[in-house]
Amino acid sequence: VDEFELIRRYFTRELIDADVRIGIGDDGAVMRPTTGRDLVAVMDTLVEGVHFPVDLGAADIGWRAVAVNLSDIAAMAATPRWMTLALTLREANPDWLQDFSSGLFAAAEEHSISLVGGDTTRGQQNIISIQICGDVDPDFILTRAGARVRDLICVSGTLGDAAAGLNLLQSNSVMLDADNDLIRRFRRPNARVSLAQTIAPHASAAIDISDGLYGDIQKLLRASDTGGRIELDSIPLSSTLVEQFGLDRAQQFALGGGDDYELCFTLPAGSEALLSEFSQQHTVRISCIGVVTDNHKLICTRQGEPFNYVDQGYHHFGASGS
Amino acid sequence: VDEFELIRRYFTRELIDADVRIGIGDDGAVMRPTTGRDLVAVMDTLVEGVHFPVDLGAADIGWRAVAVNLSDIAAMAATPRWMTLALTLREANPDWLQDFSSGLFAAAEEHSISLVGGDTTRGQQNIISIQICGDVDPDFILTRAGARVRDLICVSGTLGDAAAGLNLLQSNSVMLDADNDLIRRFRRPNARVSLAQTIAPHASAAIDISDGLYGDIQKLLRASDTGGRIELDSIPLSSTLVEQFGLDRAQQFALGGGDDYELCFTLPAGSEALLSEFSQQHTVRISCIGVVTDNHKLICTRQGEPFNYVDQGYHHFGASGS
Repeated sequence: VDEFELIRRYFTRELIDADVRIGIGDDGAVMRPTTGRDLVAVMDTLVEGVHFPVDLGAADIGWRAVAVNLSDIAAMAATPRWMTLALTLREANPDWLQDFSSGLFAAAEEHSISLVGGDTTRGQQNIISIQICGDVDPDFILTRAGARVRDLICVSGTLGDAAAGLNLLQSNSVMLDADNDLIRRFRRPNARVSLAQTIAPHASAAIDISDGLYGDIQKLLRASDTGGRIELDSIPLSSTLVEQFGLDRAQQFALGGGDDYELCFTLPAGSEALLSEFSQQHTVRISCIGVVTDNHKLICTRQGEPFNYVDQGYHHFGASGS
Repeated sequence: VDEFELIRRYFTRELIDADVRIGIGDDGAVMRPTTGRDLVAVMDTLVEGVHFPVDLGAADIGWRAVAVNLSDIAAMAATPRWMTLALTLREANPDWLQDFSSGLFAAAEEHSISLVGGDTTRGQQNIISIQICGDVDPDFILTRAGARVRDLICVSGTLGDAAAGLNLLQSNSVMLDADNDLIRRFRRPNARVSLAQTIAPHASAAIDISDGLYGDIQKLLRASDTGGRIELDSIPLSSTLVEQFGLDRAQQFALGGGDDYELCFTLPAGSEALLSEFSQQHTVRISCIGVVTDNHKLICTRQGEPFNYVDQGYHHFGASGS
């Protein structure tokens, strides 16, 4: 049994999707698309030491690699269907592969998606690229463009937790396997796939929050050719985050931290009542944190007063990374 | 302008495909599938120093990254449509990016496929993963399974050229930019996309030859639960290859060399007449090199006499690589 065979074993599971006509093992996979739905394609890469610490467990890496892609699928209000995996590894370690595949399939099975193909190669660094194909009702596609002046700017969940968790790891003040909510948020992000489908018929625009709230809202506003104003004290923070870091640092993590994988979306003015509906249906906090404006800038206030936030950015393609 | 913007510039082209509803720039791309056709997904990775020499020109790397995927699409008799790119780079060098994207788009435009999304990250090594989605007539999908006893084993083009070209490069006996057919075959492989669609209604099985003829035929035969016998002197060799390396080494390159990106396919016994038809229609050599047998082994003969070929393998995921 060569290394190829060994690796294939970890990634070949019984197919649960009748629309997958040919899965792993031929030159390509064959799937039957659902008539009347459009396809959505996303692809995200995790580089060891850049997007996750080198000592992160393989199961968490597998989970994260799927989750970050699911978050992009969610941002389009699509249903994830099939994924392909490009795995570059320093070595073929059976324990690592076993753990990695278990985390990967755990994340995949939560959304009933199938791994249909991929490629495994050797390199100097562990690098995981996943491509997910989803489908979507053509009438309810969410995009970044579409926000209109006076729309409400909303977010799901609490923000800054994962960035704070990563900070704890990087400062070595907490171990990876600690019973800590912030670290759990970093290790096991949950994409808002079903929530996005609920909001799609109502929302005017959406983006997933992966690179930090402030920067990601800016991308949405730019795509919509609008500006916005957000109130710092309206940004949802977990009590754990505030307790462990204090309000000021918690807000910094929430604005610029990244790795939240929550949704930011805009709703027409006057649809405040929808927030609690969404919240109840999906058992998740939904917060209105600001409004869309016509001045082509993103302005931050704190208790109504101007707050000068300098975005540190969050550029994976740079020395900082996460 | 940050590095992200810079990179986006090189990869954003005007969309030529009306079925791409949303391309690069949102969280995901949206495409409209063609009613009645199935989807085909392939994904292949090129690692610098493993799948290509570090001094290979960026335009050739871009071309190859697309071509190796197109070859898998061809092996399924599919039509390539849309691709996503995961690009991990040591640095963001504008000249390199310009050349890489020009090679990538040159290969893509030959088949009218669109780059619809992707991700760019920083790493210790240049690594290119491409995912291509194609579509296919559900009645004429080619797979590795389906070869029947007494079927003819056929191949397109000439084999061994690219492996010999790589050998010249690695032994430093010829420069990368030399006017040499073998090196050109390595630098700019051409996938047999249209040929595959012509043979699909007639062929019983197919695989693309990427890891070496001998090993790839074995994969096809194993998937078809059959064996085979191939005649060494029937394997098509270019005159350049034989002149530069002699017949024995030329045959070794053809059997085990890899990087051919030709098609190997099986046709029902008695359909010899189809070979010249295919050949004329696509201006490519089509050769019958053997027959499918029932003994579950691949046997090699030379002028009818048993020939003991020991497959060196061609394992990208290993120390050898190419």
